[in-house]
Amino acid sequence: MSQQIKITLPDGSERMYEKGTSGLQIAASISEGLARNVLAAKVNGQVWDATRPIQEDASVQLLTWNDGEGKNTFWHSSAHLLAEALEALHPGIKFGIGPPIETGFYYDVDFGDKTLDGSELEAIEKKMVELAREKNEYIRKDISKKEAIAYFQEKGDEYKLDLLEGLEDGSITFYQQGNFVDLCRGPHIPNTGFIKAVKLTNIAGAYWRGDEKRKMLTRIYGVTFPKAKELQDYLTLLEEAKKRDHRKIGRELELFTFSEKVGMGLPLWLPKGTLLRERLINFMKKAQDKSGYQQVTTPHIGHKVLYETSGHYEKYGKDSFQPIATPHEGEEFLLKPMNCPHHCEIYKHKPHSYKELPIRYAEFGTVYRYEQSGELHGLTRVRGFTQDDAHIFCRPDQVKDEFIKVIDLVLYVFRALGFENYTAQISLRDPENPSKYIGGDEAWNKAESAIIEAAAEKGLETVTELGEAAFYGPKLDFMVKDALGRKWQLGTIQVDYQLPERFQLEYIGSDNQKHRPVMIHRAPFGSLERFVAVLIEHCAGNFPLWLAPEQINILPISEKFVDYAEEIKSILEDAGITGSIDNRDEKIGRKIRDSEVKKVPFMLIVGEKEQEERKLSVRKHGQGDLGNYSPEEFIAYFQGIISDSLNQSSAANN
Amino acid sequence: MSQQIKITLPDGSERMYEKGTSGLQIAASISEGLARNVLAAKVNGQVWDATRPIQEDASVQLLTWNDGEGKNTFWHSSAHLLAEALEALHPGIKFGIGPPIETGFYYDVDFGDKTLDGSELEAIEKKMVELAREKNEYIRKDISKKEAIAYFQEKGDEYKLDLLEGLEDGSITFYQQGNFVDLCRGPHIPNTGFIKAVKLTNIAGAYWRGDEKRKMLTRIYGVTFPKAKELQDYLTLLEEAKKRDHRKIGRELELFTFSEKVGMGLPLWLPKGTLLRERLINFMKKAQDKSGYQQVTTPHIGHKVLYETSGHYEKYGKDSFQPIATPHEGEEFLLKPMNCPHHCEIYKHKPHSYKELPIRYAEFGTVYRYEQSGELHGLTRVRGFTQDDAHIFCRPDQVKDEFIKVIDLVLYVFRALGFENYTAQISLRDPENPSKYIGGDEAWNKAESAIIEAAAEKGLETVTELGEAAFYGPKLDFMVKDALGRKWQLGTIQVDYQLPERFQLEYIGSDNQKHRPVMIHRAPFGSLERFVAVLIEHCAGNFPLWLAPEQINILPISEKFVDYAEEIKSILEDAGITGSIDNRDEKIGRKIRDSEVKKVPFMLIVGEKEQEERKLSVRKHGQGDLGNYSPEEFIAYFQGIISDSLNQSSAANN
Repeated sequence: MSQQIKITLPDGSERMYEKGTSGLQIAASISEGLARNVLAAKVNGQVWDATRPIQEDASVQLLTWNDGEGKNTFWHSSAHLLAEALEALHPGIKFGIGPPIETGFYYDVDFGDKTLDGSELEAIEKKMVELAREKNEYIRKDISKKEAIAYFQEKGDEYKLDLLEGLEDGSITFYQQGNFVDLCRGPHIPNTGFIKAVKLTNIAGAYWRGDEKRKMLTRIYGVTFPKAKELQDYLTLLEEAKKRDHRKIGRELELFTFSEKVGMGLPLWLPKGTLLRERLINFMKKAQDKSGYQQVTTPHIGHKVLYETSGHYEKYGKDSFQPIATPHEGEEFLLKPMNCPHHCEIYKHKPHSYKELPIRYAEFGTVYRYEQSGELHGLTRVRGFTQDDAHIFCRPDQVKDEFIKVIDLVLYVFRALGFENYTAQISLRDPENPSKYIGGDEAWNKAESAIIEAAAEKGLETVTELGEAAFYGPKLDFMVKDALGRKWQLGTIQVDYQLPERFQLEYIGSDNQKHRPVMIHRAPFGSLERFVAVLIEHCAGNFPLWLAPEQINILPISEKFVDYAEEIKSILEDAGITGSIDNRDEKIGRKIRDSEVKKVPFMLIVGEKEQEERKLSVRKHGQGDLGNYSPEEFIAYFQGIISDSLNQSSAANN
Repeated sequence: MSQQIKITLPDGSERMYEKGTSGLQIAASISEGLARNVLAAKVNGQVWDATRPIQEDASVQLLTWNDGEGKNTFWHSSAHLLAEALEALHPGIKFGIGPPIETGFYYDVDFGDKTLDGSELEAIEKKMVELAREKNEYIRKDISKKEAIAYFQEKGDEYKLDLLEGLEDGSITFYQQGNFVDLCRGPHIPNTGFIKAVKLTNIAGAYWRGDEKRKMLTRIYGVTFPKAKELQDYLTLLEEAKKRDHRKIGRELELFTFSEKVGMGLPLWLPKGTLLRERLINFMKKAQDKSGYQQVTTPHIGHKVLYETSGHYEKYGKDSFQPIATPHEGEEFLLKPMNCPHHCEIYKHKPHSYKELPIRYAEFGTVYRYEQSGELHGLTRVRGFTQDDAHIFCRPDQVKDEFIKVIDLVLYVFRALGFENYTAQISLRDPENPSKYIGGDEAWNKAESAIIEAAAEKGLETVTELGEAAFYGPKLDFMVKDALGRKWQLGTIQVDYQLPERFQLEYIGSDNQKHRPVMIHRAPFGSLERFVAVLIEHCAGNFPLWLAPEQINILPISEKFVDYAEEIKSILEDAGITGSIDNRDEKIGRKIRDSEVKKVPFMLIVGEKEQEERKLSVRKHGQGDLGNYSPEEFIAYFQGIISDSLNQSSAANN
């Protein structure tokens, strides 16, 4: 008589199945469509092959392409398919590792004496599609270490043998699809037939085990999809993303540059980029002023003892920029990786009463964190960046109100900058592991419910993750979707019980006793550099008018009208409108085209007629002619656009 | 027959004197009054005793109290007088060194087992005055090293013996006045009678030869004057300077603080100080915007190779903050001591045409320079400071125009901040040592005359110093006199031929050839930190209204009127007026007194009558009641004061 097991699905429903039922069979019992789409199954929190039999009562989540872990499995299986194709085309080659990555997968291959040419990628793709059509099953086999070693010794693959050295007997598995066998922990999709579209994207060199003393292997990158259309969409997105690459637009719009002599990952902001930064900073300052923040200014270094007190040195000291010695007196300073310790010291400069709280110290503080040069990327991964940082020191009973105020501020910022699409993640304690957190239970409960209530009151769309809180406090992170649908983490609000403890921060309560304040870290932009990068890619360099460093271009028809152009420029400048005159000896058509390329919102054309009538012929970027305006009319029109856009985001905020 | 020598005086006149005539005798031959005031004589550029016979033709300058070197000699002689008094009161004590310092002098003394008590200073002063009245001559004696050693061996003074070790036989002199004999190079004043007023100011410990492994001696500081009234004036100034000490006012007004954990010499700017900084920065930015500067933003570190290129590493590397290592990749970075190398790299980010020049990159760049902890002082000597830095890249033919524009800017700044009293120093090449300068003769001539002409055109009161130019270019420095008559060097404009060479900067000239631009460094404030310190001491914390971080205090008569006070505050804030409400449960008299202490320009008192009539009762700091204003009337009055003060300095500028 067959034994029954109880399967609990994510919605809480329970179903009875025969012992040994697989995730795929469960899917089939629900709907045929689901079965066609199941890539893997999460069994009691672990991702399994969808075909692997379940022997006990379990909670099961069926993973499809819409789940991150489903995609991961799909791409991991695609790496095996790539290897199968490569082995079929180049018998005798050896394989390193082949993991899934953020988008797609790669496999590291030793081609022996041969070198792989980019032109061969198409043939490999074709072979992969051919093998995928065979719908070969991914078959899992438990295998002893001895057998595994024997297999790869025979095959002569020193890399797999190297990997086997680190594995324990009894926990080793092989996966086979078609003729290809790999040492692999899995899991995998049911069969290769799920893979409908293949694109190999890149070839690079990679040292075995990342060690430059070992052999350089060939790393082949690829991406696959369950539908041909998804590949098409992906390639289109890639094309669009390339056009919007902030490094490219940053160069074209002369926003920032890098210099090897200054050091990679250390952006040099050019005049227009500095103006953009300044507008963002002033915008944020104004919003913060209204919300009761006070600006402070602190140095970019701190004594080592400051970071020993804060705990940063112990935690990050070895992996970051190393201490700065002094020529005398044997002192040691560190480049500041964070502003919080400095703000704690400012809080301590005098005693505080409960009546003064909350105190909100804000600083556009530039911090420095070491990143390996290979990981640097434009403005998104840098070694020095400016945070729109602030630390709120408040009483425990003020946490919820402060959270609500910070959420208001973050949403105001998002809307003013055109990010309409966002969700929030609430990160709470792991209830099964309470000992790893500092701060009392009561304080945690209060802070967690404060965050949950604040998010609910503001009507945020949230996901809640247990166990994702930092050990020093719960937090709320915003995920923003850009115009291409890519997700970026922007805006963090974090409760901290640790630093007030480590710095012995105090306030005198209404009971005349000393109490510890709660600290809230928050940064709506996060890093100004990263934010500008995301913003550039989101709006493709077409900044909101109030933010554009070059808001107008004045285009004189010929040299004769440069004086009039200068006069107009000065009038507009007095109204706070920034831009430049294109006084090159070029045809007006060329000037307009160049201005369009530079994404300048307004072109103001001045010729004989305009000068006589004291008018401007106004063109809008991407839209064309708007007719004639007097300078005063244009200023009113221009300022109307700006105040509308800022008021809207302000109104939406209430 | 007596021999004649020719003496050339500073005005170029020549007089014949008998061989062996002294400076004092020359003075007597000119006027009795001069003879009474001659402290020393500068003979062919060397400072001599006024009584020392001149044996050859020479150029002679008679030094009085009005000359720095005259004062120096006076205070050096006063140190000997102190030693004489001490020896008279404490026979058997031993002496280290006793030099003049910036203001006054000190002597390091070994009192053996005794310790000197502050209460004894008065008795010593009395003894000094008594000995001064004896008008003992300072007598110079050439002495052999052997005799000198024998003398101090007998006296048992190991410190003088230690000093003697380093001296060469044949160049050793003793000076004696009254009963006191000292090993001394001189020169000295004619006799002790010149010293009319004595004040011993401090006692401190000092290691022999500054070496902490050697004995700690007692250092006695003092200051003396040729007239009793000058001492009185000095003590009054000291008292006034103490009241205006920027460290004291900075604390009282809550502008900045220091923290040992962050590190000494690294100011933490509190909210009000940050507001003050920001107002200064915005004021300067606005002025710079109008003068065609472009803001840029650069990191606070740079690769070591950047400073090797600029030459800073070779020159300052050992004495400054040491290189910052990275955990991988073996890179080395330096905290930036200057912004210029970064700006050179920005200039290089693209090619430039002669039409684009001048390019003016400005940055409020925070730089870090190591100072020994003993030399740190409030905001005037710090380890990190923000420069209002800019670098102008121009063609050689533009140097004069650029200089004029920078002078305009500097004077605008001085006037807007209430510094009415300034002079300028022009530093040129040493014509006798042309080889120590880089850059061609033609370029130097052009730049030097450009500076001289620019200064003349702007009607500056200047002194010209030959040989004071930097090796890389001539410069113009501004010296500002503060309200106490103390001089501060603020505002530097400097031509630089070196960095364009080292960084291989170029522009394409109208001849289509490559040329080197000239670089001008300039910083009207210099360091923001030091400038704020000088400004605080100049205005005793009573900042110009536009700059005051706390412009108003709203003082409700009682708690009942706090709501009305909040309403007023919000109206004023919208008009850009900053300040706070004193809602403490205190009497109005107390609130007014506290506001006066905090030097808040306006107190706005609100009570029943004011609320009913929607008015404010306005008090001005230091002046008292101004009557009743509606909020709108007050805003108009307030803004009128600000625009008057800024327009005046702007008008004076034209």
